[in-house]
Amino acid sequence: MQNDASRFAASLKASLSQWARQGKKGVWIKVPKDQAKLVPVAIEVGFWYHHAEPSYVMLVYWIPQTSPTIPDNASHQVGIAAFVFNEEGQALVVQEKSGPYKHSRLWKMQGEGIKEGAIREVHEETGNIDTEFVEVVGFRDGHNAPFGKSDFLFVCMLRSVSSNIVVQDTEISAAKWMAIEEFASQPKNQQSKLLKDMIGICCANVKGRSKGFSGIAGISSNSRRSSAFYCSALHSQ
Amino acid sequence: MQNDASRFAASLKASLSQWARQGKKGVWIKVPKDQAKLVPVAIEVGFWYHHAEPSYVMLVYWIPQTSPTIPDNASHQVGIAAFVFNEEGQALVVQEKSGPYKHSRLWKMQGEGIKEGAIREVHEETGNIDTEFVEVVGFRDGHNAPFGKSDFLFVCMLRSVSSNIVVQDTEISAAKWMAIEEFASQPKNQQSKLLKDMIGICCANVKGRSKGFSGIAGISSNSRRSSAFYCSALHSQ
Repeated sequence: MQNDASRFAASLKASLSQWARQGKKGVWIKVPKDQAKLVPVAIEVGFWYHHAEPSYVMLVYWIPQTSPTIPDNASHQVGIAAFVFNEEGQALVVQEKSGPYKHSRLWKMQGEGIKEGAIREVHEETGNIDTEFVEVVGFRDGHNAPFGKSDFLFVCMLRSVSSNIVVQDTEISAAKWMAIEEFASQPKNQQSKLLKDMIGICCANVKGRSKGFSGIAGISSNSRRSSAFYCSALHSQ
Repeated sequence: MQNDASRFAASLKASLSQWARQGKKGVWIKVPKDQAKLVPVAIEVGFWYHHAEPSYVMLVYWIPQTSPTIPDNASHQVGIAAFVFNEEGQALVVQEKSGPYKHSRLWKMQGEGIKEGAIREVHEETGNIDTEFVEVVGFRDGHNAPFGKSDFLFVCMLRSVSSNIVVQDTEISAAKWMAIEEFASQPKNQQSKLLKDMIGICCANVKGRSKGFSGIAGISSNSRRSSAFYCSALHSQ
């Protein structure tokens, strides 16, 4: 063990000298969990932490005497609240949760957009409802999330496209359709101005007065990157 | 060194046993950089990585035989593109960059909202322009950012409130005001449909036809959290 560490330290120092002569700048080491004994060795040589995921930690070192130009670590978590309505203009209410304006768990959207994530989440949470994405109604820009991070909560509207609008109770959750007016007037949905406003916007939008951001897929200046752009539909036509 | 590690391992195992008897669930260890020798010890005991910042790595362990309910690591980087106009309806153009629709560097917004970040960035990048936030015109939801993360780029409009509209060359950047029509017609701003659309939206919005999301500050259900909600101004009045 101790020999492995010594050999790694010597090899790392030799490599850094060579890379410095070659004009290299940033050096990354991705250390898998089962090689964790190399972490203190790299730190001792002068590396610092960049980020970590469950199975590895990424260390970085900057060779020149200049300020490092190293990409920032991720700073935000992202969540969604889905408002789902059907062709009869009813809202989807999920039992024991706060209704259509339901905060789902924060989830990782790596490799997945807001639109795709919202559709998937609604399907998973209701067990059987397929939807099409209508728009982002608004979003909360919040701070002081765990670990000093920030978070976004996107409020999305989706239209049910399931031919069968009868929602069945499932192990995942019990859900039913409710007239929008009935839903909006429930005491719990009158508790905060924000919730009232959001429901008001969603109700207006169900009646065709869209004021949110719809998505334009496939917008990217770089073919390696999958992305979508969200802006007012009034402009994006 | 080796003794420290052995003592830490023994102490950690004893603590885990005690916490298990007490019904504790998640256990966190924040290991500062100068204590990196404890990282492989904790990993050996069964901890895994949660996240890391330059000066520390956070390790986590889940005691029960159930699925861990541990907050996700941050998944998104956030950047801004600022479109700045003045009381004469001119756009701010920054030399050697892509004009008003200028991608600034990705920056961390920890403890800072989109609105505050945009105002600060414009001030820093132009050296002297003070602005007020008008709205989020749209945003890009992109994937395959470095390290498998995703990113958001928020396109924001800001109105100059500096009484002196003469922009001076500074060390930071050279900037000047330009008639919006002249700016929009520049070949580089006609290159992509998205850029054309964005500039078209911004130009329309300068003329008072706002279609973006303006922010409502101080919206939060939790007094520990600072946050703002962004939605259509047509609804937020």
